[in-house]
This record gives sequence, C-alpha cells and structure tokens, in this order.
Amino acid sequence: MTPRAIVSDILSKKANQGGVKEIFFVSCGGSLTAFYASKFFLESEASGIRVGYYTSNEFVHVVPASLGVHSVVLLASHRGNTPETLEAVKVSKTRGALTIVLTYIEDSPITKVGDYVVRYEWGGGAKAGYQKPAMGLRLAVELLEQIEGFKYYKEMQEGFDRISSIVERGRASITEKASKFARAYKDEKIIYTMGSGCGFGSAHQESICVLLEMQWIHSASIHSGEFFHGPFEITDENTPFILLMSRGRVRPLDERALKFLQNFAKKIMVIDANSLFIDEIDDSVAEYFNGLVLANALGVFNEKLAQERNHPLTDRRYMWKVEY
Amino acid sequence: MTPRAIVSDILSKKANQGGVKEIFFVSCGGSLTAFYASKFFLESEASGIRVGYYTSNEFVHVVPASLGVHSVVLLASHRGNTPETLEAVKVSKTRGALTIVLTYIEDSPITKVGDYVVRYEWGGGAKAGYQKPAMGLRLAVELLEQIEGFKYYKEMQEGFDRISSIVERGRASITEKASKFARAYKDEKIIYTMGSGCGFGSAHQESICVLLEMQWIHSASIHSGEFFHGPFEITDENTPFILLMSRGRVRPLDERALKFLQNFAKKIMVIDANSLFIDEIDDSVAEYFNGLVLANALGVFNEKLAQERNHPLTDRRYMWKVEY
Repeated sequence: MTPRAIVSDILSKKANQGGVKEIFFVSCGGSLTAFYASKFFLESEASGIRVGYYTSNEFVHVVPASLGVHSVVLLASHRGNTPETLEAVKVSKTRGALTIVLTYIEDSPITKVGDYVVRYEWGGGAKAGYQKPAMGLRLAVELLEQIEGFKYYKEMQEGFDRISSIVERGRASITEKASKFARAYKDEKIIYTMGSGCGFGSAHQESICVLLEMQWIHSASIHSGEFFHGPFEITDENTPFILLMSRGRVRPLDERALKFLQNFAKKIMVIDANSLFIDEIDDSVAEYFNGLVLANALGVFNEKLAQERNHPLTDRRYMWKVEY
Repeated sequence: MTPRAIVSDILSKKANQGGVKEIFFVSCGGSLTAFYASKFFLESEASGIRVGYYTSNEFVHVVPASLGVHSVVLLASHRGNTPETLEAVKVSKTRGALTIVLTYIEDSPITKVGDYVVRYEWGGGAKAGYQKPAMGLRLAVELLEQIEGFKYYKEMQEGFDRISSIVERGRASITEKASKFARAYKDEKIIYTMGSGCGFGSAHQESICVLLEMQWIHSASIHSGEFFHGPFEITDENTPFILLMSRGRVRPLDERALKFLQNFAKKIMVIDANSLFIDEIDDSVAEYFNGLVLANALGVFNEKLAQERNHPLTDRRYMWKVEY
C-alpha cells in the first residue's frame, strides 16, 4: 500500500472512534533519527495533532497515558528484528493504537506484527525519495493532509518527485570535498556534529550511527541553537566540527554557528544544503528535505573516512557479537 | 503567586477561549534541561494535553503552527536576559499564548515581558524543592491537575515537601565518592554521561553545562536506551562514563547499561538515586524526582572536579566575553 492508501485506510477505520489525534514515532538509534524530519515537520505544521518521539525501550517502560485508540504509531527497524521496537508494536496494539512499521527486510519479524508495512530502499543505488526517512516523511505528510489538510501538499509531492535526482547530483558534487576532509579528519579522536531543524536529525545520526558506532571516534551532536548556551566553550583550534547547514527558516541558526566557528575554530567541515541543489524544491517545503540532502551527502564523506582509516563501516566489536 | 494560583488564574482567563490545550517548554541550555523532568512528566501522564520542548531560537524561527490562544508557554532564563528566550516570550504573546517565566534575578528583563513570573532558588543553600527544575515541575503538575486531574497529586505534593531534605542528605552522603572520582577523572579528555527518564535530562545537562561549558572536557550525553543502538561501540577500558541510575519504571534501562559497562568498560562512575534517599517519596511519583536527586548529587562531583583541575566552574573563554 502507498502512504496515501495506508493513511486513508487508517482514517476510515478510526472514523467511528473519534479519529486520529496523535502520532508517535518510536524506534531505536538510526531508525529513530530517520523519523526526525517527520517529527519536525508535524510539530511545525500541525494545528491539533499531538506528536511523540521516543526511543523504543523508554516507550515500553513508561507507556504514555495518551496512547490509545486515537493514536497512530510509526516504528522502523532495518532488519525488522529490534526487540525493543517489536515490543513497542505490541504495547501499541494492546492499547488500541494502529501501527505502521518501516523495514528493509521483506517478511522480517516486525512485518508479522505491524498493522501496515512499508518497505524502503537502502544501500547502493537506493533512491533518496524512497529511503527510510523519506518514507517516514511521506507518511507524516499524508497524515497531516488527510487529518487537518496541508496547504503545501502539492509542493511537498513535487519535492518527493525531485529529491532522488537532487541527492544523486549532490552526492556526486561533494566527492572532492569529502575526500579532502576524510584525509584531514582520519586521525581525529573526537568530531562534533552540528545542525538545526531537520539538519539536527542528520547531525545526531552521524554522531551515533557513524562516528561512534561504525568508526569508534568520540562524538557528540550539538544543535546549532544550543551551541551558544554551553557547548561552544569547547571550541578551539584543534577540535574538529562538521556543520550541516540547512535551507529554510533555521538557516540563521546555522549561519551564526558558522561565523563563530570561523572566528575560533580551525577544523570546520561545512556541508551546505544550499550548495546541493535543494533550491530545486519549492521554498514553501524545501526545509523538510534538508535531512535527506545532508545525510546522503555525509554518506560520501563516511565512505571516504572509512577508507582512509582502513576501518570498514561494517566493523563492530559488540553489536550482534556479545550479549547485551 | 504560587504555581497553583498561577495556573488557576490562567485557566480562568482561558475559560472563554476553549481552555488550555498545549504546553510548550522553551529555553536555552541549562534552562531548557531544567524543564526536562516537566516535559517527561506531562508526556507520561497527560491524556490530552499537547507538549512541546524547544530551544528558543528554533522556536522563534520555526513557530509551531499550533501556538496560539490555547497555549501556555513556560520559559526560563537564569539572569532573565537571554535574547533568544526574550524573543520567544514576545512571539508567544503575539500569538495569544500566555507565558510563565522562571528566573533567578528579580526585576530582570524577562520579568517585564512574561505574563507570570516565578523566582527560583539557586546556589549555596538553595532548597531543591524550590530550584528551577522543581518550580517547572510544580507548574507542570498544577497544569495537569487543574486541566485533566492527576491521580497522584497528593503524593507529588508530599514529594515536593520532602525533596529538599532528601537532596541535602544525598549530597552529604556522596562526598567521598565524588572526591574519589574527581581525582580519577581529572585528567580525562572525554567523559560520557548516561541516563534515562528524568535522569537523561540530568545527564544531558551535565554534558553541556558542566563538562563542555565549565570544564572544557569533551562530552556527549547518551540515553541508556539508545546506548545499545550505536553509541555503545565506543566503549572500551579507557573511556570514562558517568551513569545516572533512576528509580522507577526506566530503571531496567539503566541497569542494562550498567551491566554492559561492567563487562566492557573500566571507568564507571555510578550515581544511583536509590542510594540517595529517593525511596522516601511514594513510588507512584518518585521517578519524577530522579532529576533533582541526581543533578544535585552530581553537583558535589562537579565542585570536586573543578578543584582537582584548578579550573573554577565560573571560568569561560567565550560566554559574555566575545561577540557571538
């Protein structure tokens, strides 16, 4: 089923129960950050829908009082077997909520328990418009459109039509820069990532899924707006940053961070959505695509970094290897 | 005015406009983390109230569509002069929302623009039950009680009555451990903080306001539940952690993190609310006091750490010193 058909089906089922009043995004790690743009979109644009964003294990241990027949819960699991997320599906259903599960693996365990299943593209050749974050965002847009209406629905659909090509060209255009910074950063012990709006989701994902998980490089993600309220004191000429600059209303936050870094830091890698063809999307909605553009461009850097460090992105020391 | 009187006044003013439907927490840095327990409490206990949690500058640049006459916005600023938060007060009022501002400084700029002003205690001798996070939580509890009703309102009030004494004794009991770890961690280049539930708010605050801002030690905060979905790959015998363990429903998440750290890390400082007299609060609500107990205990460690490092907690290199 398409996102449009899924949401339409949910609303027809919920029509006699008072409709859908809240949307929860519940997942772990990179599957949770994949929903960051969806959460940001709904919190920004929705007039009445409640939005929740939870790591699965906290969600199942502290079940929100509001979870119930008026709730739709979106959950993602790449292999479809994340135990905490499977449990979150069960908890949601027990409370009368409907669940939409996103996964890469066909017939994975989560597809057996979720009410609606959405498969996304992943890996080499995956089209950005059908990657996990894009499928989440498509669902969020459909939910808003069909529950409350969304003024820029058409522009958003045009954005989805264009984003795969934009991301492909963006990735190609950043190769040289990515190689340069992979060489420059390969021996760094810590790398901070920064961004705002949807870009903060990408910054956080880079920290937890790539630098910490795949490269064992110390890292923290900092929101460009929060930077000046504590974290910026860590800035010096030796500390490397990756600053993700977004197009749209949050841009002044990223520009302020850039100006400060240019004054007081020396190691600054900037990835700017404005240089990555995002202007081909209408400005009414372009900002909701920052995450897809920035995360995919970062992917080029991540591959180069792994090569420079002789540390494959697939290396793990604990995950799937020890009990935890 | 007391939190009870403020909320009562707000609800009487909003009675003709359809009441209060959503509560936003909007601030910067440590003033935002001060609201973490309030956000956690409402997201957990509220059936219908919407909850938002924003860094001020993102809030004013991407004003949520839902902000309006049904909204109450809580904002804090220690000196009452944080420009982004002052702007957030103005934006909120322009949209017809009512604002409650928390500050330490009497007659500070924010007290001139906020609809309701709450002063909190701070510094040596401040009673925990009247610190910034406690005043935020008192307001959140009143909002829930007076809008929807809260089953454990009485237990919560008893908790507020007891928390100052609990924190005082907790701080005294941790002196030796704090000194030991201050000596052990004084030369570390990076320290991770970890926690869940309200404890995650304290962990995040420790990272951004103390380690990064006041000690210029690299740091990231990791949610105990998220740890196993990426970040735990950074674990080794040389990497120090501060694990904040909460009482209540999230405790299994912290216990799982502890078990892993005991297997694969060597430098582990555990601060456990269960050893800090939190059991004197009724278990129906004790978990909402974890943040106050843990953050105040951490304060003892922070003072010792600053002494060991000859780096006063008041030292800054950029804040209030350069333009940004």
